[in-house]
Formats: sequence, C-alpha cells, structure tokens
Amino acid sequence: MSKKATIYDIAKELNITAATVSRALNNNPKISEKTRELVLATATKLNYKQNRLALALKSGKSKNVGVVVPFINKNFFASVIRGIEDELYPKGFHVIISQTYEDTTREKKIIQNLLNAQVDGILLSTAFTEQNKEEFRESLKKNTPFILFDRVLRFKEISTVTIDDYQGGFKATEHLILQGCKRIAHFDVDQSIELYKHRFKGYKDALAKYNLPYRHEYVISLKSNMEAGKDAAEKLMNLPIPPDAIFSSTDNGLLGAVKYLQSQSVRIPEDLRVVGFSNEPFTQFMEPSISSVDQSPLEMGKMAAQVFLEQIENDSMDKVQSNVVLPAKLIVRKSSSK
Amino acid sequence: MSKKATIYDIAKELNITAATVSRALNNNPKISEKTRELVLATATKLNYKQNRLALALKSGKSKNVGVVVPFINKNFFASVIRGIEDELYPKGFHVIISQTYEDTTREKKIIQNLLNAQVDGILLSTAFTEQNKEEFRESLKKNTPFILFDRVLRFKEISTVTIDDYQGGFKATEHLILQGCKRIAHFDVDQSIELYKHRFKGYKDALAKYNLPYRHEYVISLKSNMEAGKDAAEKLMNLPIPPDAIFSSTDNGLLGAVKYLQSQSVRIPEDLRVVGFSNEPFTQFMEPSISSVDQSPLEMGKMAAQVFLEQIENDSMDKVQSNVVLPAKLIVRKSSSK
Repeated sequence: MSKKATIYDIAKELNITAATVSRALNNNPKISEKTRELVLATATKLNYKQNRLALALKSGKSKNVGVVVPFINKNFFASVIRGIEDELYPKGFHVIISQTYEDTTREKKIIQNLLNAQVDGILLSTAFTEQNKEEFRESLKKNTPFILFDRVLRFKEISTVTIDDYQGGFKATEHLILQGCKRIAHFDVDQSIELYKHRFKGYKDALAKYNLPYRHEYVISLKSNMEAGKDAAEKLMNLPIPPDAIFSSTDNGLLGAVKYLQSQSVRIPEDLRVVGFSNEPFTQFMEPSISSVDQSPLEMGKMAAQVFLEQIENDSMDKVQSNVVLPAKLIVRKSSSK
Repeated sequence: MSKKATIYDIAKELNITAATVSRALNNNPKISEKTRELVLATATKLNYKQNRLALALKSGKSKNVGVVVPFINKNFFASVIRGIEDELYPKGFHVIISQTYEDTTREKKIIQNLLNAQVDGILLSTAFTEQNKEEFRESLKKNTPFILFDRVLRFKEISTVTIDDYQGGFKATEHLILQGCKRIAHFDVDQSIELYKHRFKGYKDALAKYNLPYRHEYVISLKSNMEAGKDAAEKLMNLPIPPDAIFSSTDNGLLGAVKYLQSQSVRIPEDLRVVGFSNEPFTQFMEPSISSVDQSPLEMGKMAAQVFLEQIENDSMDKVQSNVVLPAKLIVRKSSSK
C-alpha cells in the first residue's frame, strides 16, 4: 500500500513543527496567513488529505455512534437498530454495528475498540448480568455517553431504555387466566438478567391476583432456542399434572415447545394455550399463529437515539440521566384464543 | 468532556517537537534512549494514553474491517457476517457492520465513512446495479481492499465471492420438471442485479433442456417482500392457464404467494409446487415446509474473509484478485415433493 502524506511530511518539507502544520490546517488564529498559505500549498503539492479521523482525534467528535447488540439476526435487535438509524442518520451520524454473540470478553473488546475509534457514543444491549456487573462498569467511560437498552444494568450515571417487562409478564399471564387456564407454566431464561426477572415477577403476581397457586415445577429456566424449548415442553408434559398453558419469556424457546407439542398431538389452543414474548415475525406465520408480547423495538431504538442526542447536546451529562420505560403490548393470536 | 493529554502536551512540557515525541513513543531508533525515557515518564505523568487510532493514522492499519450489507435482519446476510467474524475475530480484527437499506446514496456515505475511519478493508454486498456501476466504481479506493460478495459488480481489480446462482436456478427448475410440473412460473426480482439474472437464466435453460416452452407471462418481476408475492400469485392464478409450479428467486416473495394460494384453497404441493431461493429459516417451519436453494452464507462469509486476508498479506493486491464461486444446494422439502 502506498504511504499517505502526513502532517509530518509537510512539516519536514517546510522545516516547521507538525504542531504548526496542524494549527495552520485547522485555521488556528495564532498562525500567520502567510504560513497558512504555505502549509496549504505544500499539503496540495504532497497530495495530503486531511483525515476526518485526525480531526476527530483533535475535536473528540467523530460523528460515529457505536451500536452493540448480542445478535444482529434477532428481529428484535434488528428493529431497534433500524429505529436508532432512522433517528440518527438524518442528523449526520453514522451508525456502526457490532455483535457480541453474548460473550462478555468480546463485548469488552468491542467497547474498547469503539472508544479507541472515538465514537461519540455507545448504545448497548449488554451481555453482562448482575453477577458480573462490576466488571462491566470498568468498561464504561465517563466522558463518552453510554445508553443501555433492553438488556440493561443499572448505574446511577447511565441512561437506560427498556420496556415494561413486568407489565408484559403480568398481562400475558392474566390473559391466559381470563381464557380459563388454571395451570400456567412459565419458561424463564435467566434470572440474573433484569428483564427476565421482571417478566417472571409479572407472571407470579398475576397468579397471586387471581388466587392461583404458584408451582415451582411449572417454571423452567432454558436457553432461548428451539432445542431447549422442546426439552422443556417434554419435561412439562411428563409431570403428573401437566399444565394447560405456557407463558414463555422467549419466542424461540416457545417455537421448539409448540413443534414438540404438535408432534405429540397436543392441540393448541384447545388442549394447551401459549403466549410468547418478543413478537418475532415467525409467531404470526405459524399455524396456529402465536400470541406474543410486543416490545416496540422501533420505538425503543428511536428513544435510545433521542436520549443519546440529549446527552451530547448537554455539556454536563450527569444532569440528563434518563430511565425511559416503554409500555409492553400483548398481541393476542390463535394460540391463546377461545 | 475532559480534554485528553496529546503528544503536543508532552512536546510542550519537554520543549521538543511533537514529531520527536511521536518517534519516541513508537520506538524509532533515531531517538536516543535518554529522550525516549523522558518522553515516557512525561507521558505517564500527564496520563497520556497512546491512541490506537493515532497509531492507525500513522501505520495505515486499524485492525478494523467494515462489512456493508443491504439489511442486517435478513438471515442470509446475518449468517454471512457470522462467517466473516468467525474467520477474522481470532486474528484480532474487529468487524464493524453497516447497513445501506438498499440506498445507494447511503452506501456511498458509508463507504466514505469507513475509508475515513482507516479500516483495513471493506467487505460489501452492494445496492448498486449494472445501471449505476460507474458511480459505484468511484467509491472504490485502490489502496484499501474491497471484497464484494453475493450482490457483486465485476471490476478487473476487485475480488468477488458468490454462489453459483445459475446452477441454483437450473437445479430448482429441473427438480420441478422431474416432479412432473409442465407450467413453471418464475418470480424474478431485478435483472440489473447479476445474481437474479443468473437464476433466471438457469430457469430458462432448464426449461429448454426438457423441451418445455418458455412463456413470458409466467415470469413476474417483483420486490422481495410478502405483499409483492401475494400480488404476483394472484396475477398468475388469474391467467387463462395458471401455472402448476413456481420457482421464486426470493423466499420472502414466495412466502406471500404461498399465504395467498392457501387462502384460495390451492393445495401445495398437490395443485401447485413451489421452490424458493435463500433457504430463509421460516421455509422449514411453514406448513408445508418450503423447498429452497441454500446459499451457504457461513461459507460465503468465511471465504470473503479469507480473500481479504490474502490481499492484506500480499503487498501488490492486483496479483491476488479472486473470483470465488460456491456451489448452490437445493434443499427439497414438502412444498415440491410428490
């Protein structure tokens, strides 16, 4: 690769310091007009191109915003990113996306790389949990805005955008109860992640409100994938008294469960009603279509972007810490209707 | 935001030039050991952190690779990206992802931004077509490797990774013929995009090989979404002689068509057989499951990454231009079986 001309080359050619060249290129008033013209002429002669990154190094503004998610191919995260871009692109920001694959080591490297690249802010759905919260805190940098969304950890100085997961869990469970279900199972993912804890609490509180007993054998923690959902459904159906409904905190897990139940000739919704969470696109294409809690991902993305813009427009960031909570919407489809 | 210490601050403190500081920090042998120690001590005192980007500016290496796709939420592109990351992450590269939303103006801005950010290379599935190929060429930069994949344009100096779309179209159509279909329709997307042209040619050549007539009213160009697929299917079924099969270059378009056909009580595969292209995940979950041509996205991503690595390891890039073509695999499911 051909080497590019740098300010050092210009400085050498004119026998002045690089700092002087830099100041001249940036119209610093301390530099005489004569020097400035000389520098510009030499820059042109050497085919020097002022690098936006070099400017960023100086000004601390790159007009790049990093967005970090566990997986880009989950519809939810892709839609959040769309919302962020819809908001930031018209304002001249470039959104650069990274995925952590839910690997915290990788997430730390990505954050460090984005900070090195002088991004103006990082919008992040974290793979860290309550258990390694302190390790995550070390990655945060006071003078770069961090906005956490969906999978958040709470720090006094960090803004968050989430949906009302408690309300989502409560509504889904209440809906199943009002459909006549009495033995409602729950697919949980990970109680060290705030959003799953809240969904679970909503489930429990709805049972309590309608005087239904909480049975711990009906609550299964599983990974958010089809295989795990299949195994969990099998476990539930082998109980002495199997449930008559499932509220799942994961659509992907529920998908595996539904496929398994259908293979066992369990009729949905007649024998067993189900409600998922995330409103993944496949839920509406399945037969029967699957009820699910919608997380308003587009709105979440827009909101996260707005919180970011608020922060960079405000010099003293500590004052504008926001915790936005969006409503959760239950979408009722065939899988849970009479 | 607190201002960071720069090499200029160190230079000022020591009354030497910034160039000297920079050389000292980068272990340039021209700098005496004494000066180097002085610079390091001052750097520590001022809490100066050598910026990786600043290093990148100097060396022209950032260890960042830009990946640009039309949409991140199509399973195909998400899997290509996974393949790229699987290959590059262990080698210390950071993959930063951008999406163009199929907007060429936006694609140009993204490319410019990545070049400004000194990425080591750009792996790109372009929104440009044969019609505005020259405008795209202007975005390419000789001394930064560009690897085009899937949606490619051909330039003498640019490497490409594609699948054998012609073979995919041919195999899909031949399979329908061998299942007894005689009136095979085709959903095309855009003939100014090479891959759709090749799939269409495969379709045409398969018809010719088996002496089936080519009927232009059976070929419909549509956008790659459900609504367009529904309209196209409606058009086909209103023909005096409707087709008995559809080979679609788009799974998403085919999804809309299948939903429409089912609403009209057309039985799949009994009355009409269908094969799609891309092997999107929903194809296997649908009832009936949908046959589709798999594009080996993981392998495509890995290959694109390998071509990139080859290029940066080779000083004179012109010599290693590669055009990799991966095989297309037909996945037969219920929608086209006897």
